[in-house]
Amino acid sequence: MATTTQQNVLIIGSGVIGLTIAHVLTSQPSHNYNVTIVARDIPTEGMDSQAWASPWAGANWSPMGNYDERKYKWESRTFNKLWDMIPTGLTMELPTRAFFADLSELDNIWWKDLCREFSIIENEPLPLNMKAGVRFTTVALSPISYLPWLKSELDSRGVKFVRQKLQSLQEAAVIGGPDCIIVNATGLGARSLIGVEDTKCYPIRGQTTFVYAPQVKECIEVVSDLDPTSSSGHATYMIPRVYPPGTVLLGGTFQPNNWDTSLDVPTAQGIFERCAAVEPALLSSETKILSYGVGLRPAREGGARVEVEWIDVPGESELVPDRESLGDKRKVKVVHAYGFGPAGYQSSWGAAEDAVQLLQSS
Amino acid sequence: MATTTQQNVLIIGSGVIGLTIAHVLTSQPSHNYNVTIVARDIPTEGMDSQAWASPWAGANWSPMGNYDERKYKWESRTFNKLWDMIPTGLTMELPTRAFFADLSELDNIWWKDLCREFSIIENEPLPLNMKAGVRFTTVALSPISYLPWLKSELDSRGVKFVRQKLQSLQEAAVIGGPDCIIVNATGLGARSLIGVEDTKCYPIRGQTTFVYAPQVKECIEVVSDLDPTSSSGHATYMIPRVYPPGTVLLGGTFQPNNWDTSLDVPTAQGIFERCAAVEPALLSSETKILSYGVGLRPAREGGARVEVEWIDVPGESELVPDRESLGDKRKVKVVHAYGFGPAGYQSSWGAAEDAVQLLQSS
Repeated sequence: MATTTQQNVLIIGSGVIGLTIAHVLTSQPSHNYNVTIVARDIPTEGMDSQAWASPWAGANWSPMGNYDERKYKWESRTFNKLWDMIPTGLTMELPTRAFFADLSELDNIWWKDLCREFSIIENEPLPLNMKAGVRFTTVALSPISYLPWLKSELDSRGVKFVRQKLQSLQEAAVIGGPDCIIVNATGLGARSLIGVEDTKCYPIRGQTTFVYAPQVKECIEVVSDLDPTSSSGHATYMIPRVYPPGTVLLGGTFQPNNWDTSLDVPTAQGIFERCAAVEPALLSSETKILSYGVGLRPAREGGARVEVEWIDVPGESELVPDRESLGDKRKVKVVHAYGFGPAGYQSSWGAAEDAVQLLQSS
Repeated sequence: MATTTQQNVLIIGSGVIGLTIAHVLTSQPSHNYNVTIVARDIPTEGMDSQAWASPWAGANWSPMGNYDERKYKWESRTFNKLWDMIPTGLTMELPTRAFFADLSELDNIWWKDLCREFSIIENEPLPLNMKAGVRFTTVALSPISYLPWLKSELDSRGVKFVRQKLQSLQEAAVIGGPDCIIVNATGLGARSLIGVEDTKCYPIRGQTTFVYAPQVKECIEVVSDLDPTSSSGHATYMIPRVYPPGTVLLGGTFQPNNWDTSLDVPTAQGIFERCAAVEPALLSSETKILSYGVGLRPAREGGARVEVEWIDVPGESELVPDRESLGDKRKVKVVHAYGFGPAGYQSSWGAAEDAVQLLQSS
């Protein structure tokens, strides 16, 4: 990269991954990147879009699945970063109780040093026929204040936002300008983006109920449900929100390969009942239902993809048979960063650092 | 309705059905309605939203399914209305060839007097192993010019638009103001709208490819595919568009209960190949792929629902058990108009007239 000319970077996707990558990339005042984010939905506009996962997230750090070295690095880095942000009011520490359906799950707590103040619950009754429980302190944010904050940071650093639904890497390469590097942070959109067309991507449907319940101060999670191999489809949790004050997100469902973005009313009733069984304070007359949500967690078989690929553009985008090429092909560097499933926020800073390193490597 | 005070009408949904109802309702300059349309997506904004069916439609009059008295009335009324609009340039007449997989389907052409210039194809080769074919002239429009036109008409008549995703009839009743009548034109959203929660609603997934192919002047349809009971999932058709000039919509799929809004690339290849098999002119180097689309046709078991219901608000929206009511209930008149599946545009004027009649009846 020459120091006298700017490197064009075109980020596709304005979810927490795309925004955080832009943030890391522009964190040095002396940086030399000309960054444009192109997305169908961008923060403060389109926050109701159910085709966009980020607004519907929890979003606390929460233990999920088995140990994985890469995941541990991303999540511990992100946990600490979000923890350091507590004084700003964008994040908050959150006392949590987590329950397990099987006693043996206590042997697999790879994350006890990742979070804070971990202890095993002893000599207390456990809800919902659970067999074990732990206490810890985690960190949580609220997407509806956190995403606009990320955007305002990027605005002040000169990052440009274009609200447009891209169909192909070819379009991205044109918008990005000469020699641009493309960052593919499209989440579930990586299935549809011509030139990527990653059929390993799949949705994990999550339905939630957002309530005002200031009497609920503690996060409660049934961790066994958050295992991607769980078959119940349920994921019982309640996450008090830093913003708006007094609100709590009740969940939920964990339904792989279910694209249904419509509200299922019996499921909404079940969510409330399961949460109230764990936390009877929810039944107080203070509780008020504010809204319902359905979002699709952008998962990927084999886990998130964070890697570099050099792609011929146009290339795979050419679907018309028996015709001449649309023009000369051009090699474009693409940094993929998508497929984080239920763990987008809690991987965001660590994964963004890796993505930026890949972007900067020659 | 008093002549000195305005009747508040709150229409939920800004697809072709909601907009057309507003148009019919305000067509008399002396009308006495104060009309507000509330929708998650509205024309010229949010046209990329895949949660909204209207932008992705054909949209030509096209024969579908069996004879039904109500459907015939709606569609013949709409056909004639759209035909009369041809001089405005918003619609155009469209010569069409339609093919059938079974010769017996020729006995079931209930629509031959609904369209124009109908004749049976004789002594000509038929494509794709089809067993019968017909010619007729239909009328077609382009959603990306037609929806903004409808909106501009309504703007000039003082109809207010609010871009907001409503969760419940209760919210609608509050926004609509005292004694408002609610029109529920939410399409597939009727599944999720608290207080309606119509589980008979389901999507029929449609995938399309939008091309520039000015050499293609004729609409071609494999009618057998457009039968909701067809199991192939395919629906081969190509519809030249009045706007932008020279463009053609290639289809498609007809996949009931499939909510997947991601692009399936092998399907896109199959669509092009099937269309090119019917119309080899598509293989010309003039053809240029512009974009791909996936939309969910808002279907309903038993057909569209156009009827009045008096609903207690708040009522079914109360999902919290064991708690006192949120307040006094209020009877609200709701005119339902949703569930048109693949036939929204071609039913729009006739169905809107029925909906307005229901709205005006006491």
